[in-house]
Amino acid sequence: MSLLLEGKKGIIFGALDENSIAWKVAEKCAAHGAQIVLTNAPVALRMGAINDLAAKLGTEIIPADATSVEDLENLLSRSMEIFGGKVDFILHSIGMSLNVRKKKEYTDLNYEWMLKTFDISAVSFHKLMQSAMKLDAMQEWGSILALSYIAAQRTFPDYSEMAESKALLESFARSFGYHWAKKAKVRVNTISQSPTMTTAGSGVKGFSDFFGYANKMSPLGNASADACADYCVTMFSDLTRMVTMQNLYHDGGFSSMGMAPEILE
Amino acid sequence: MSLLLEGKKGIIFGALDENSIAWKVAEKCAAHGAQIVLTNAPVALRMGAINDLAAKLGTEIIPADATSVEDLENLLSRSMEIFGGKVDFILHSIGMSLNVRKKKEYTDLNYEWMLKTFDISAVSFHKLMQSAMKLDAMQEWGSILALSYIAAQRTFPDYSEMAESKALLESFARSFGYHWAKKAKVRVNTISQSPTMTTAGSGVKGFSDFFGYANKMSPLGNASADACADYCVTMFSDLTRMVTMQNLYHDGGFSSMGMAPEILE
Amino acid sequence: MSLLLEGKKGIIFGALDENSIAWKVAEKCAAHGAQIVLTNAPVALRMGAINDLAAKLGTEIIPADATSVEDLENLLSRSMEIFGGKVDFILHSIGMSLNVRKKKEYTDLNYEWMLKTFDISAVSFHKLMQSAMKLDAMQEWGSILALSYIAAQRTFPDYSEMAESKALLESFARSFGYHWAKKAKVRVNTISQSPTMTTAGSGVKGFSDFFGYANKMSPLGNASADACADYCVTMFSDLTRMVTMQNLYHDGGFSSMGMAPEILE
Amino acid sequence: MSLLLEGKKGIIFGALDENSIAWKVAEKCAAHGAQIVLTNAPVALRMGAINDLAAKLGTEIIPADATSVEDLENLLSRSMEIFGGKVDFILHSIGMSLNVRKKKEYTDLNYEWMLKTFDISAVSFHKLMQSAMKLDAMQEWGSILALSYIAAQRTFPDYSEMAESKALLESFARSFGYHWAKKAKVRVNTISQSPTMTTAGSGVKGFSDFFGYANKMSPLGNASADACADYCVTMFSDLTRMVTMQNLYHDGGFSSMGMAPEILE
Repeated sequence: MSLLLEGKKGIIFGALDENSIAWKVAEKCAAHGAQIVLTNAPVALRMGAINDLAAKLGTEIIPADATSVEDLENLLSRSMEIFGGKVDFILHSIGMSLNVRKKKEYTDLNYEWMLKTFDISAVSFHKLMQSAMKLDAMQEWGSILALSYIAAQRTFPDYSEMAESKALLESFARSFGYHWAKKAKVRVNTISQSPTMTTAGSGVKGFSDFFGYANKMSPLGNASADACADYCVTMFSDLTRMVTMQNLYHDGGFSSMGMAPEILE
Repeated sequence: MSLLLEGKKGIIFGALDENSIAWKVAEKCAAHGAQIVLTNAPVALRMGAINDLAAKLGTEIIPADATSVEDLENLLSRSMEIFGGKVDFILHSIGMSLNVRKKKEYTDLNYEWMLKTFDISAVSFHKLMQSAMKLDAMQEWGSILALSYIAAQRTFPDYSEMAESKALLESFARSFGYHWAKKAKVRVNTISQSPTMTTAGSGVKGFSDFFGYANKMSPLGNASADACADYCVTMFSDLTRMVTMQNLYHDGGFSSMGMAPEILE
Repeated sequence: MSLLLEGKKGIIFGALDENSIAWKVAEKCAAHGAQIVLTNAPVALRMGAINDLAAKLGTEIIPADATSVEDLENLLSRSMEIFGGKVDFILHSIGMSLNVRKKKEYTDLNYEWMLKTFDISAVSFHKLMQSAMKLDAMQEWGSILALSYIAAQRTFPDYSEMAESKALLESFARSFGYHWAKKAKVRVNTISQSPTMTTAGSGVKGFSDFFGYANKMSPLGNASADACADYCVTMFSDLTRMVTMQNLYHDGGFSSMGMAPEILE
Repeated sequence: MSLLLEGKKGIIFGALDENSIAWKVAEKCAAHGAQIVLTNAPVALRMGAINDLAAKLGTEIIPADATSVEDLENLLSRSMEIFGGKVDFILHSIGMSLNVRKKKEYTDLNYEWMLKTFDISAVSFHKLMQSAMKLDAMQEWGSILALSYIAAQRTFPDYSEMAESKALLESFARSFGYHWAKKAKVRVNTISQSPTMTTAGSGVKGFSDFFGYANKMSPLGNASADACADYCVTMFSDLTRMVTMQNLYHDGGFSSMGMAPEILE
């Protein structure tokens, strides 16, 4: 078996339950030899499933509200203690829309909630990178990754303000990618993943419709959470050191299709 | 002389002084036969130059803080009264970064200021479109336009969080463009303009450097505020009715250049 | 009425019959005050409808096989004689796939035909621009335009090798756009138009299917040939002088849609 | 050591000498456990260095002119005999411009040479994929890859007609990617690599200029041939099965930079 991440240490945000992409990523990274620290918001941790994952992987969970710089700094400091050194990779898999959750239409959004959505789903990524830079927490040639969605480029009306959240997220990856490259040759990328049957994803209105549509439109079908985790492993490995400031579609070809004959049938 | 906007009524944000793109747009739209309402933030109005423009064009100024839904609704209602009907076109030319203004580096940003920057520079565009939709303020086949910059796609380190602001702005144009098309066949686009010697633009750190760089990199040179105003006129006219949800580069070719021999000389 | 092209002189390729986009462009340009020369391949001219157009517009037809440099040089020289000066604008609206016409599948293409397809549909654009440059035929600040399709970016399986033809065409626009800007401040762009019910377009297999699909997917519906002609007028006018090396979507929003709820209904 | 390609069989085009990207890819794939067949044009083979590589890897060389369908079919058939089964991956690393070689300016191209350039540099990729499909030569979930350059999207004047060749190449990847996905879940992608100090690359006029420029513009510097080979390994492995019809920038961040402060210094 190949051990692509032997000796590497990583922090993984967003593992909620076994359907989470982040959950699969943690499992695959561990299987590839990495040491992992898990983190999620206190409210998510209370649901409890993540304890099973931590037990299985023999790893620790450090709670952190990703909108709190203080929490992020604590997470990074504690992780470095646990790792006995700097961090090789980080997965940011966080996204939540208050307006979607509260069923506000895109033409009737609450702006306080919108800013909170951006803070949770995108600004948290900047906060994480800024905190890591201030603490000099990243190993040279490390890799920072966030999960995105093609709504950042194209309109899916039901995705609502999450489109803007993902556009923001991808912009932070590009902008901060410059600074991280200069600081420590760390790369920063986003993976734009197929719609995925996670607990979070499937909560979006009309989700099963666009899951099915995307599945037909994608010549290889939708990419699963498992396949996404495989792809994340390559992005954390030393084989992709010169890929940075990119948004990488992991979507079975969806993003390059104009029209699939399968849709018309 | 051609009168492309005869009988049309439009609202123009962001005319500060005669160097402003918005100022030129107002002049050109009036010259093409449009009736204009000018607006800007109360603090900007106090600088006074806009009164000269209003006098020259025989038009009114309605103060509005673009982050205030109340102000935007008042602006739209009052404009419809003045126009005696709905609005044909709107120009959003608003952008300001608190962190840039306060000289905070991109790796040391203040997050309260960041959210305020987004609110001013991008969320204001959603607020404007949502307010206009609630008031049913747009004429069928109308045109809504915002000014953007290529930092939404590529990294210019000194542009800082304005990169994210423009990414957000362009995403709002795409997302709301869908809803406006369905509601009243209104189109929504952004123009991604060359760096321009405006009072706002030239305040950005290193501005003259990237102005000169962009000028050399662009086969036609940087596009001026005057040329941008001409382009806006076409986008408000009936000749571009089917262009929507686009980001249109008005940049002398900059966006399509990989390397210009002129840079090396 | 606005006369955006008063005093301008232009050459228009590809007007076959009254359904052609080029036909509408010729009519609109004339209505906006331009003097026009029409051209098409000898075989297309034999169909005869273009004579009606020429008569109506009081203009001349100069036959040219767009793959023949000699024909193109003759066309340009003769046009300059007719115009008594240089050319202000050119529309390239040429495309034909031998493999599609002969019903060869994309996985069973004839390569001699493929190269011929590229020569007709794309290399002809380079030949035209190179000939015009050698003859110094373009007026300063002139505008060269070609019609493209989004298959250059995304896969529409039935569009076959025309996808590659359009990718080539758009690349020629970018590459030659640099040289034309430097030579005479001439701009070069492509318009990526909705599927259009022309005699050429509707010959493509499955055309009515993707016409209908695109119409539903586009928030404003498919753009008509008439609307496209309006847009071409703006691109030939002096109001768009700084737009160059761009591919401009004129498609009712199709290119920015990820999924339209209308498709699922 | 990780063995990502254990048991996989691949064909590699374009290894000329030890500076070739393809040479490094062959070495790395072999190190990752793959069985390799090398191929190149007869004229390139005569230079002889590839024999050392074949000896070192214990592999065979099958000559093939990539513009000859007959040669390609022979290559594929012979490879399947050697492998005792179908092919898991293919690298297309072929590019040559006759006009560049013969120092013809972009505004004075020879069109016979241009079509020949396209045939060698891009149509060969379609021929390869069509031949492989007819022979049913690809293993399910296999991976086909071609090397490209960002001139497909942006203008580098000295790159001349190779810009169009790469635009064509990438379009073939998208178009045929659909058919290969449907046929056998095979993915097809292009890697858009930094300018690389290969024997082929450095022959382009002004190469050292744009190598240096790209190196400064890229936050991580230019990606080396070695790093590119690593990236190719991930794209041939089972960890990237759902990535298809993509153009993947492997360029140290060049493609996402608007302006690097380093350029101005």
